[in-house]
Amino acid sequence: MKRVYLDNAATTSTAPEVLEAMKPYFTEKFGNASSVHSFGRENRNVVEDAREKVADLINADDSAEIVFTSGGTEADNLAIKGIAMKHRDEGKHIITSACEHHAVLHPCEYLEEYHDFEVTYVPVDEHGMVDQKDVEKAITDETILISVMMANNEVGTIQPIKEIGKIAKENNIYFHTDAVQAVGAISVDVNELNADLLSLSAHKFNGPKGIGALYIRKGTKITPFMHGGAQERGRRASTENVPAIVGLGKAAKVALEELEEKQEKITKLRGKLIKGIKEKIDEVTLNGHPTKRLPNNVNFSIRYIEGESLLLNLDLEGIAASSGSACTSGSLDPSHVLLAMDIPHEIAHGSLRLTLGKYTTEEEIDYVLEKLPKVVDKLRAMSPLYDQNS
Amino acid sequence: MKRVYLDNAATTSTAPEVLEAMKPYFTEKFGNASSVHSFGRENRNVVEDAREKVADLINADDSAEIVFTSGGTEADNLAIKGIAMKHRDEGKHIITSACEHHAVLHPCEYLEEYHDFEVTYVPVDEHGMVDQKDVEKAITDETILISVMMANNEVGTIQPIKEIGKIAKENNIYFHTDAVQAVGAISVDVNELNADLLSLSAHKFNGPKGIGALYIRKGTKITPFMHGGAQERGRRASTENVPAIVGLGKAAKVALEELEEKQEKITKLRGKLIKGIKEKIDEVTLNGHPTKRLPNNVNFSIRYIEGESLLLNLDLEGIAASSGSACTSGSLDPSHVLLAMDIPHEIAHGSLRLTLGKYTTEEEIDYVLEKLPKVVDKLRAMSPLYDQNS
Ligand SMILES: Cc1ncc(COP(=O)(O)O)c(C=O)c1O
Ligand SMILES: Cc1ncc(COP(=O)(O)O)c(C=O)c1O
Repeated sequence: MKRVYLDNAATTSTAPEVLEAMKPYFTEKFGNASSVHSFGRENRNVVEDAREKVADLINADDSAEIVFTSGGTEADNLAIKGIAMKHRDEGKHIITSACEHHAVLHPCEYLEEYHDFEVTYVPVDEHGMVDQKDVEKAITDETILISVMMANNEVGTIQPIKEIGKIAKENNIYFHTDAVQAVGAISVDVNELNADLLSLSAHKFNGPKGIGALYIRKGTKITPFMHGGAQERGRRASTENVPAIVGLGKAAKVALEELEEKQEKITKLRGKLIKGIKEKIDEVTLNGHPTKRLPNNVNFSIRYIEGESLLLNLDLEGIAASSGSACTSGSLDPSHVLLAMDIPHEIAHGSLRLTLGKYTTEEEIDYVLEKLPKVVDKLRAMSPLYDQNS
Repeated sequence: MKRVYLDNAATTSTAPEVLEAMKPYFTEKFGNASSVHSFGRENRNVVEDAREKVADLINADDSAEIVFTSGGTEADNLAIKGIAMKHRDEGKHIITSACEHHAVLHPCEYLEEYHDFEVTYVPVDEHGMVDQKDVEKAITDETILISVMMANNEVGTIQPIKEIGKIAKENNIYFHTDAVQAVGAISVDVNELNADLLSLSAHKFNGPKGIGALYIRKGTKITPFMHGGAQERGRRASTENVPAIVGLGKAAKVALEELEEKQEKITKLRGKLIKGIKEKIDEVTLNGHPTKRLPNNVNFSIRYIEGESLLLNLDLEGIAASSGSACTSGSLDPSHVLLAMDIPHEIAHGSLRLTLGKYTTEEEIDYVLEKLPKVVDKLRAMSPLYDQNS
């Protein structure tokens, strides 16, 4: 059967050239990068080389500003808990948005519950967009951290991060952005964004799973999150995951080289997919911002159907899609992002996310445009809601 | 040049069969294990299969008691902070030992500094051994957790964990053991040990780096450490690192199958190495317990020489060794473990750890027994201390 993978926001395949780069570091060059002998030293060099490549991808001034983590979640935890714990004497107020990933929201809730922090969750508009004026208004004397994601993982909306970063800087408040969905997809520049901290994750841009990084601007002090050995200049303990770090480095290099070309190709395919769905299926709404959105994100609410059945029926046709964040799939709660956008429960339930990737072809888009309308027709034919309304 | 790797306590090479098992999960079967489509479901199955294999290796009753982490450090952080945060209303006292790994000591210090916990660090004897009576005496009404490692990473001493576990159980106190050096090296049975929580790390037994697990006995409630998505039944957020999890599963299976044979082979080689060093070099002391020690651990203090020069000179002969914990190497502080054993500073500095692995050969041991005495002679000839004393 044909298999079409359109869930690249959940995870991507590791590029063959990335796996090739990693391979020697499992069985041959397996030393502990902190060891002083030759097995260790050769790996220290490749770790530092990968760090440079990650720094280049986000235009960091100095590779020492990059700390490797086990993924985007750990980078978010380190940023938020790390700033909160270190600077809690200066204030206990954090500003974030209602449409953040759980890897940001749950650390914030933890700080509320366990450390008496106050957190303001600024709202988003119907496109999932944060208004920087709301962020500015939320600032108090107690505010030590603003954390707003660069691009949303469900609806693809790109936030006004540059503007929010400027506000944070003017008010002398640390600024973190979860750029897990943005890095490798659009151009990201920590200096342009005024970001003090920025999270990324390799498996979202054809690197391996289980590795990510936190950018920490020079001079920004944090309390470590993972306590133990002195790795990563004392900022993140645990034996360096050399093969994965090499893979992240390689993926970062490729992402930078291919960025423009990939963006152009995917944007074009996305346009075709959006246009096709609107033409072929009635009563659909594109969720997220019409133009300020990730090149690879398509998210529709399709009325009168239930997201889960849609996914399962698409799966039977070999099409892999998602209905909201993969991190909470399995749960039947409607997505907190769509709810924050004021989309009614029953419509939020019928949402479909199709996310394109570097290997997506036009033929695959054509296949989806052939199958999806048929699946929708079938499901609507069975839906009591649709009967009542059409 | 010949290269002999005797730093297997720092890290091991990934076994070729482990890498083979992992490979398909990078480029082909790359789905997010939490996704509902077929790319996700096929990976959910392999994750659960790996969980069973890890459970088998430590004789856990139920694979649901296994939580995958990014390594031993994260497992230790999750155990210690997880129990402390969840049960802090029941008491704020923790008992651990002076010779724990930093992945246990530093989370304890964090709890002291940030959460008003009190921690008792029970001493060790000259062999690095904890006395269970000291643990028992340290218990107060406030004690909620005892954490003592199963085997020491520097001197290999195997602690009376079964006895300590019994004391914890009788006193209704949670018991955690850092078994990172023990799992895959000696037989480990969570029920026999009365462990409520047990940490392990794949790269210490020929699995990949960046993956480990925490055993959490059914009914033991913990506060999550990595906050975010609902992965690992809400106990550890972040996209499942499928290839690494598969690698850990495979390494666990192989370790269980080979355990006896490997133990016997390595113990024999270790005996030869210890005997040879004692015969060929004067004024050396074996650190750690003479019999209750890991099959792969050799740790000598070699008088009148400085550990770092010894390592560098061995490295020139192609021999990879360590002087204390790899996690703190790079620092010149003497090892806290040797100091806790009351070994004077200047002798602790001259310590050499040689740790054997599954691929160590008798020929390699012979090579070390040929080269090491020469290197020691050379260094002692240059040492003002040796001149004065010999
Ligand atoms: C916006 C965002 N932040 C954080 C994460 C967490 O990343 P990881 O799964 O690598 O921990 C994800 C994806 O899962 C994400 O989309
Ligand atoms: C006893 C012990 N605990 C914990 C760790 C940490 O494990 P990891 O490096 O996988 O985080 C190590 C090794 O580094 C260890 O030897």
